[in-house]
Amino acid sequence: MATTSPTVTDICLAAKAASRSLAQLDSGVRDAALLAIADGLEARVDEILDANTRDIEAGREAGIPGPLLDRLALNPERVKGMADGVREIAALRDPVGEVIEGWRLPNGLDVSKVRVPLGVVAIVYEARPNVTIDCAALAIKSGNAIVLRGSSSAANSNAVLGAIASQAAAEAGVPEGAIAVLSSGEREELAELATREGLVDLIIPRGGEGLKHALKAVATVPVMYAASGNCHVYVDATADLDDAEKIILNAKLQRPGTCNAAETLLVHRDAAPAFLPRALKALREAGVELRADARTRTLAGDLGPTLADATDEDWDTEFHALILAVGVVDSVEAAIEHINRHGSGHSDAILTNDTQAARAFTRGVDSACVYVNASTRFTDGGQYGMGAEMGNSTQKLHARGPIGVRELCTYKYVVEGSGQARP
Amino acid sequence: MATTSPTVTDICLAAKAASRSLAQLDSGVRDAALLAIADGLEARVDEILDANTRDIEAGREAGIPGPLLDRLALNPERVKGMADGVREIAALRDPVGEVIEGWRLPNGLDVSKVRVPLGVVAIVYEARPNVTIDCAALAIKSGNAIVLRGSSSAANSNAVLGAIASQAAAEAGVPEGAIAVLSSGEREELAELATREGLVDLIIPRGGEGLKHALKAVATVPVMYAASGNCHVYVDATADLDDAEKIILNAKLQRPGTCNAAETLLVHRDAAPAFLPRALKALREAGVELRADARTRTLAGDLGPTLADATDEDWDTEFHALILAVGVVDSVEAAIEHINRHGSGHSDAILTNDTQAARAFTRGVDSACVYVNASTRFTDGGQYGMGAEMGNSTQKLHARGPIGVRELCTYKYVVEGSGQARP
Repeated sequence: MATTSPTVTDICLAAKAASRSLAQLDSGVRDAALLAIADGLEARVDEILDANTRDIEAGREAGIPGPLLDRLALNPERVKGMADGVREIAALRDPVGEVIEGWRLPNGLDVSKVRVPLGVVAIVYEARPNVTIDCAALAIKSGNAIVLRGSSSAANSNAVLGAIASQAAAEAGVPEGAIAVLSSGEREELAELATREGLVDLIIPRGGEGLKHALKAVATVPVMYAASGNCHVYVDATADLDDAEKIILNAKLQRPGTCNAAETLLVHRDAAPAFLPRALKALREAGVELRADARTRTLAGDLGPTLADATDEDWDTEFHALILAVGVVDSVEAAIEHINRHGSGHSDAILTNDTQAARAFTRGVDSACVYVNASTRFTDGGQYGMGAEMGNSTQKLHARGPIGVRELCTYKYVVEGSGQARP
Repeated sequence: MATTSPTVTDICLAAKAASRSLAQLDSGVRDAALLAIADGLEARVDEILDANTRDIEAGREAGIPGPLLDRLALNPERVKGMADGVREIAALRDPVGEVIEGWRLPNGLDVSKVRVPLGVVAIVYEARPNVTIDCAALAIKSGNAIVLRGSSSAANSNAVLGAIASQAAAEAGVPEGAIAVLSSGEREELAELATREGLVDLIIPRGGEGLKHALKAVATVPVMYAASGNCHVYVDATADLDDAEKIILNAKLQRPGTCNAAETLLVHRDAAPAFLPRALKALREAGVELRADARTRTLAGDLGPTLADATDEDWDTEFHALILAVGVVDSVEAAIEHINRHGSGHSDAILTNDTQAARAFTRGVDSACVYVNASTRFTDGGQYGMGAEMGNSTQKLHARGPIGVRELCTYKYVVEGSGQARP
């Protein structure tokens, strides 16, 4: 898609300039811009689908596998879904200007900690074109300018979506340059984006480990990783076994390719004889490949001898597929220790009726999201009532868990006085 | 101080292990440990002063300049001050386990966002030995293990202070390894510390730009910069000139070597004829070297022709000394623009009696701390009522402004249900 386009630095400079006035816009203007984007998507659906068809055809010629083409493909319903998603984001409470806390000091100074936009957020992502619109909408809602760098396989779709969004936003009063789509492809471009200190305030990579490492090697701007998840479901001695079976099936199967799907099932030795035979049977019938430790094979009844060995590597792997590692542990403490050693700090669940076990688990598991008697699949900005999300963070600084509009903000202290000087 | 000491990695491994149980300790135990540290400092004051004397003597022989030796020197009062500081930190409310917010979802799930320790915090700092104790106390209060790497010129002092702190803490029930002092000096050691991903959760450099750049070049663990400050005082058209004079004198002179001292004075053109002659006279009489723009020289009365020219570089410089750049601007918008272009995003103040100017300034200035009618010198965790601080952050991710006990924490989502699976 090489045209005589502005450089990455030009685009970042324009985004920074736009971010200064965007941060000062009232939410009424920003919300009107979002509704205009939603309307624009619906009004220009033919244009979007034309561009998408060109991407799909090019992808088919280039031999892109079917599931990836599926993720790339748009249709009228998906475009309507994108527009509705933007309207939902518009309806969220404005994070900008929220007073997080405030207090008066003994010397009479009034201190307020006020939420403000970060400035310019960049996102690097793969395939799905709806990410372009989700992220643009989250950025505008949170008062940030955004630089979008999608996959080259979606270049036509993203260019049209970006143009619709930035035109609609500009007509509603959002400054030009606030929504920018980079033509994608070159690694040098990524390095340029990741080193624009002072222009780019945050870069979020959404994608595989390759992208993450490529960025880590070059980035000098702050990076927030929307990371992978090696999630666990632990069935405690006192668990309700019906709930436990329902939840491991849900956590593994409801959408196995997502980062909050379960990859390991741990079962307390006291629950194992009753739980493993029925749960593993149900999982296998649903098409899940099981990799079990020795105690599981002993305690799983007739199924036991038919189970494959779990290797050391299996405990550390995010399968992203219909594969599940299964182990038996002696206690909730052993489960916590296993999860903290092998997990990725994303989402982990305990099934239990024991308040002390629940308390030990929620306190001891060092993960972004810890569940008691619920599926790990709930880790999601939408599910949490935060609107859409830019991804899920497993890092500890700044944001942990879903990255929504608040997480795209920083804060400042505003201190008001009547002439105070420091003694 | 080379003895056959454990490697940096050994120390970080021990700190990580300690952090796991430290995070689970009730605040009663952690607070008791802090009080024991305070008592230990007072009981072992002679030992501390002996070690400090050795550092001072070595420093004198090595030709360390007087002001640096001053910062390095301890005496009974300073040791008492350190102990009292630890007791103040013990008296703070426990940040660990604070429910930041919580809500119930439509499906009945209860979501709580709970503050939890980061894990292992490392700090790299210069000269002043009291930092060793301040930072150890802040870490224990916030449930974190800490790795301390001070200046080699304070090696004897820091070794004794670290030993007193870790012994007292251990006797009170804090796990061994939670407070570790690295023998300092080698750059390789710094690089090793800054690359222990998975062991060190955060590294905070306190010191000059050289240290910052050295770390930036090698660090793979998250870094939070306790940064320098190029702070501004802006005197608006409607300012109370008595307050304005008092505050610029305070912001420049009360402690000129600190990061929240003022480096630039901006004056609205309407206030300049009345304000500049008196303010610049008072500043000069206090020993401040003034560097002024052309309009200031015109509007400063008799003093005008005697003022040195401000160069472009002066606007960007944190003098850390009795030097002040002075400029005249046409409007609050021009002041905001100057500050956002030349400032470091630390602390900036407006003096005004105009509510709209105050509002424009607090919203428009993109800094960690923005003051209305008060001195920039208040930017400090202690002054803000947050207890002591690890430094002040001018970055936007995670913490902005004073880094206190809450800022040494992350959070996790705890989600409690009754068997919910995702539809």
